[in-house]
Amino acid sequence: MAAVRRTLDGRWHTLRDEIRSREDFAELRVDPATGVEAYRAAVWDMLGRLAADGHAVHGFPTAVGGRGDIGGSVVSFEMLAFADLSLQVKSGVQWGLFGGAIQALGNPEQHARWLPAVMDLTLPGCFAMTETGHGSDVQSVHTTATYDPDTREFVVDTPTESARKDYIGNAARDGRMAAVFVQLYSKGERHGVHAVLVPLRDDDGNVLPGVEITDDGHKEGLNGVDNGRLAFHGVRVPRENLLDRHGSVAEDGTYSSSIESENRRFFTMLGALVRGRVSVSGSAVGAASLAQTIAVRYGEARRQFAAPGGDEEITVLDYLAHQRKLLPGLARTYALRFAQNELVEMLHDIQTTREAGGDVDEKRQRELESRAAGTKALTTWHATATIQACREACGGQGYLSENRLGQLRADTDVFTTFEGDNTVLLQLVAKGLISGYADDFGNLDTLGTVRFVADQVLDTVAERTSLRQLAERLRAVGPGGEDDVRERSWQVKLLDDREEHTLDGLVRRLRPARDKGISAERQFAIFNSAQDHLLRAARAHLDGLVLDAFVRGIDTCVDPSARALLEKVCDLYALSLIEEDKGWFLEHGRISAARSKAITAEVNRLCLELRPHARALVDAFGIPEEWIGAPIATGAEQRRQDEARAHAASLV
Amino acid sequence: MAAVRRTLDGRWHTLRDEIRSREDFAELRVDPATGVEAYRAAVWDMLGRLAADGHAVHGFPTAVGGRGDIGGSVVSFEMLAFADLSLQVKSGVQWGLFGGAIQALGNPEQHARWLPAVMDLTLPGCFAMTETGHGSDVQSVHTTATYDPDTREFVVDTPTESARKDYIGNAARDGRMAAVFVQLYSKGERHGVHAVLVPLRDDDGNVLPGVEITDDGHKEGLNGVDNGRLAFHGVRVPRENLLDRHGSVAEDGTYSSSIESENRRFFTMLGALVRGRVSVSGSAVGAASLAQTIAVRYGEARRQFAAPGGDEEITVLDYLAHQRKLLPGLARTYALRFAQNELVEMLHDIQTTREAGGDVDEKRQRELESRAAGTKALTTWHATATIQACREACGGQGYLSENRLGQLRADTDVFTTFEGDNTVLLQLVAKGLISGYADDFGNLDTLGTVRFVADQVLDTVAERTSLRQLAERLRAVGPGGEDDVRERSWQVKLLDDREEHTLDGLVRRLRPARDKGISAERQFAIFNSAQDHLLRAARAHLDGLVLDAFVRGIDTCVDPSARALLEKVCDLYALSLIEEDKGWFLEHGRISAARSKAITAEVNRLCLELRPHARALVDAFGIPEEWIGAPIATGAEQRRQDEARAHAASLV
Repeated sequence: MAAVRRTLDGRWHTLRDEIRSREDFAELRVDPATGVEAYRAAVWDMLGRLAADGHAVHGFPTAVGGRGDIGGSVVSFEMLAFADLSLQVKSGVQWGLFGGAIQALGNPEQHARWLPAVMDLTLPGCFAMTETGHGSDVQSVHTTATYDPDTREFVVDTPTESARKDYIGNAARDGRMAAVFVQLYSKGERHGVHAVLVPLRDDDGNVLPGVEITDDGHKEGLNGVDNGRLAFHGVRVPRENLLDRHGSVAEDGTYSSSIESENRRFFTMLGALVRGRVSVSGSAVGAASLAQTIAVRYGEARRQFAAPGGDEEITVLDYLAHQRKLLPGLARTYALRFAQNELVEMLHDIQTTREAGGDVDEKRQRELESRAAGTKALTTWHATATIQACREACGGQGYLSENRLGQLRADTDVFTTFEGDNTVLLQLVAKGLISGYADDFGNLDTLGTVRFVADQVLDTVAERTSLRQLAERLRAVGPGGEDDVRERSWQVKLLDDREEHTLDGLVRRLRPARDKGISAERQFAIFNSAQDHLLRAARAHLDGLVLDAFVRGIDTCVDPSARALLEKVCDLYALSLIEEDKGWFLEHGRISAARSKAITAEVNRLCLELRPHARALVDAFGIPEEWIGAPIATGAEQRRQDEARAHAASLV
Repeated sequence: MAAVRRTLDGRWHTLRDEIRSREDFAELRVDPATGVEAYRAAVWDMLGRLAADGHAVHGFPTAVGGRGDIGGSVVSFEMLAFADLSLQVKSGVQWGLFGGAIQALGNPEQHARWLPAVMDLTLPGCFAMTETGHGSDVQSVHTTATYDPDTREFVVDTPTESARKDYIGNAARDGRMAAVFVQLYSKGERHGVHAVLVPLRDDDGNVLPGVEITDDGHKEGLNGVDNGRLAFHGVRVPRENLLDRHGSVAEDGTYSSSIESENRRFFTMLGALVRGRVSVSGSAVGAASLAQTIAVRYGEARRQFAAPGGDEEITVLDYLAHQRKLLPGLARTYALRFAQNELVEMLHDIQTTREAGGDVDEKRQRELESRAAGTKALTTWHATATIQACREACGGQGYLSENRLGQLRADTDVFTTFEGDNTVLLQLVAKGLISGYADDFGNLDTLGTVRFVADQVLDTVAERTSLRQLAERLRAVGPGGEDDVRERSWQVKLLDDREEHTLDGLVRRLRPARDKGISAERQFAIFNSAQDHLLRAARAHLDGLVLDAFVRGIDTCVDPSARALLEKVCDLYALSLIEEDKGWFLEHGRISAARSKAITAEVNRLCLELRPHARALVDAFGIPEEWIGAPIATGAEQRRQDEARAHAASLV
């Protein structure tokens, strides 16, 4: 099924093949029994190998020796999920977050000064945004940088324990410098959140005066990453260390920025950092693919319980219950793969245009941010759920670290709450839907939670997904018989209706919060009582985006039999999605009881039909044999089953 | 809320308080950063402390120095979930499984000979049932023990790699002996599965000749337990090592048993070992309680995002989305606590009667087994889901090992697939429902999967839950106005209807499999296509049992305000359960669309109403302060928030 793989690989297929051919890739993995310090050391060494091999260069500007391939940087990051997730996250901290912050927020001189050392790892660094007291609400960070015109320095301070930078990768062991997100003060005035480069350790690795580093210690997973806490006590850095693309301080302390509104400046800055979220999302899809590759291969080798009238045991993947555990999840990974591919293309096109000095429509940038937030929420929750299902589907074998599933689960668990807590991200998506991209930008003051009800123009319901267009296109193509639940146009219409209805209802529920003279408490109560509705609206919207991407992805496939298979996978995705929320569709009269039962029957039928293709479908993820690692997926179980059956035969 | 706690504590409340007062309990926990070997050593030492303190004696017969308190042994095991889960599982292997096998399957002489050394840990042992090739299908184990009348010994052999005993706790490091489950052969005949005690290591810890032990290595969790693989090559053990309560071999090799049918003998033996399943179930409830204690306390301390019109940040547990994440799960833990209490009582009463030489109705024994299987499936899946939700609700803090949630998740993850895979256990429950307890016992030949469709009497639908009786009782008490979704009688009737309808439908779907002359392939196809229906029927039945237990549990509470609170928690449990499956209730015309929406609204309202009691509800689990351990739950977060607010105030 080379054609399926090619379709899944998308625009960066050549790069994917290039990375697949890395001969030493299977060595880039650490035995999970390794203790924390040894694990960190091993990951540090492997990171050096990646740096030496030029793995870091993809996304950086050509002016400083990079390849200028932003999409490629996300794809090459994603493929590290097949190696070791600690290595992947560590590389993401160094090149994606630390390097990315300098790239996105620094000026060309700053690029030239620091990025080469970032790429070749002579300057290991941290991305110090999150504080103990403030995770997803970055705008509220409490660390300060106060400009001192006498010495032309910034003085960086951590006023309270809550204001410590926390969970910072590279902090506990290796980092020499950090991009620290601070409230910037000059001439007694606050200018909002900015990033300042602060040296942490000298060349010998000694922590510098005024810097306080503590270790976050052992974690549920990712123990090869040296997360730690940073506090600063009157640490002075030169004026030139302010990453000043969006705001600078003159020698005399005068603040200037091309963006007047502090809010707008903040969100422009955050928007420039969107690549981190896109990368985590890709990693989640990669990890899910690997887990499913292992579980499906095992499910094809493993036999359990004899069939009636014989001693032959049944292959576990032949049981409907086992198919139900694995195949709808597999279909969803396909769907999210296509959604992720579109997201990466969008990121690449927008940021490449901007780096080349071109103009990017602000609406399109907002769309990218919303899509990145939403896709990341879907992919990371999916990874958590499906890796868990894979672990259970492999029983005790799945619990052994040698078979990777447990560690994949533990390593990816934090994805749902870092780079933005998923629940907060969904609210951001919903907020975008309600307020419309055309609204006064200044209203995006917190990440879509409480305050927004106070000042939104709730009447403007923005464009939704392209589902509506897709529905129309599909209608134009064929008669769209609605009798068949596999009719794509019917599935699309159903999801489109749900999105529209959910959003309309949400706007109606929130509108009273805009009444004049309403108290703050009452506003909060109105918002809060609709919060589950808000989250539902965001999900309905995102489900539409994903289905749309799946359909578009299939359109890029020219091989007829591969297309036919992908259509079936898409049916399983769409129908299991509808089945999951059948309560809503029934409640709102969108489907009849008979139709609802037909959907469940069809999901079962699709599981049965796709069963013979399960192995081909996971093979199409294109994970090279020697990377898979797990013995149960690479011959051990099959060999044991063969031996046991030969032995049984010898006794007869 | 001492009254709530007393109600939750149930019949063994005195023992619970006794264990709570253990002063050194908080020391019984290992730093998760500890490497595998050091972790194992630490757990071994702690197990010795437990043994020295008499922790082991509860469940063993008074004749050998035990307390003869079977329920107490389960409860004391459960409470170790608050300490270290590796320690808990290790203690379960030693006293529950190894000691339990000798107790349940051995004769009084064998008890006297071995149990004292089991209790005081001078004889560390293993429970070697599972094989690499056979997990839940124990009846198919391939290890053999062949009687040699010349030497009056059994010769134990592992014919293939699949037949290795696998995941065996105490095997890799500490075990000196194992209760090995084998196919017993004598005089050329097979007599089915029996357990034989096989020495593994000598007094110096050297592995004995013919015994092959390999290490299962690092695992996702429970790394303080030394799981390993055992293979036997012509290992000879004396005739007296056969645990022969249900089948013995005379010196000349003549086999005899009081139970003629091999099937029946097998299931009688398995039934005697039901305590393991009950214990795992209790541990899952304990772990869920601990996770919720941590997450709710953190949710009460943590603040994030400012409210409209002020700088005061909102306590995260005040957000509906956060309540939705935690409170329905908390209500379910309450429900499962009551179900678990009933299960332990049932186990205690039945096994105490039997140990005293009394007669136990076979139907009641089957009920116990079915209930243990089903409750274990519900509680362990619940633990996985709710600990995950707690981790996410605590964000990055939840990912740090010091806050315990990550390790709780990883340690308990295997619960869903050990002591019987949950999916297989649900099939066992469904099978019991269909076949009726009165059926020919010989039909229970495999754990309710494939073969059973071939030979079941599908017309007999057995008694279901006591839900029907509860419904009638509630109707007798009050008018049962069905307008109010909080009306218990309405909730009960709804669940009862679902159970009846699902079961009837299942029987209808399976009946064609009994047609004469039907092929084996067709039989399998019929069974397989209804497998999801089968699992649904089991769940519907179990949900009824749990609600029934909750209602009965509330009845034991005499304090009026505690009762009122428990009623609300029960409402949240019942309504969130119904909401979760609203698709089914709508599809089958059991609720109207308007009623369905009212249920969702009511779940939200209950979250709001219970919010002020959240802390009291987790405190009622009665986990002593110093056992909780997690800094975020024991003051650190509160202190930081106070400091941050004081600092902010000082700036104004």
